Amino acid sequence: MTTTTIQVSGMTCGHCVNAVTQELQGIAGVQDVQVDLVASGTSRVVVTSAEPLPQAAVVAAIDEAGYVVVDD
Amino acid sequence: MTTTTIQVSGMTCGHCVNAVTQELQGIAGVQDVQVDLVASGTSRVVVTSAEPLPQAAVVAAIDEAGYVVVDD
Repeated sequence: MTTTTIQVSGMTCGHCVNAVTQELQGIAGVQDVQVDLVASGTSRVVVTSAEPLPQAAVVAAIDEAGYVVVDD
Repeated sequence: MTTTTIQVSGMTCGHCVNAVTQELQGIAGVQDVQVDLVASGTSRVVVTSAEPLPQAAVVAAIDEAGYVVVDD
């Protein structure tokens, strides 16, 4: 079991949380997604998976949801 | 044809706009919904319908979407 933590900008509400969560759960091996929503800033997203996730897949999922991964 | 204009607080993003629009379009007679999103404040929502809409139906739709109608 491994966790991947990313910082995501542009999320403002529960709908945004749902959109990001759904996209991340579409990645093979993802078991859990937790979002610490910071509506006015950068939200922390923690993804739990059996094996380490390809960074590109995580970034692509966030992009697909309509948001941007930012540096820590 | 008539338009009903309401002020709605708590909307922050396009998902919110979609949620409000869908609920309002569920009211009988509604022909068009336009939202002027003000993410940090009060958003103006204009509903176009053939006949005047019951205020209670409009307020209920906004509540169902998860937002609050505020006074002008």
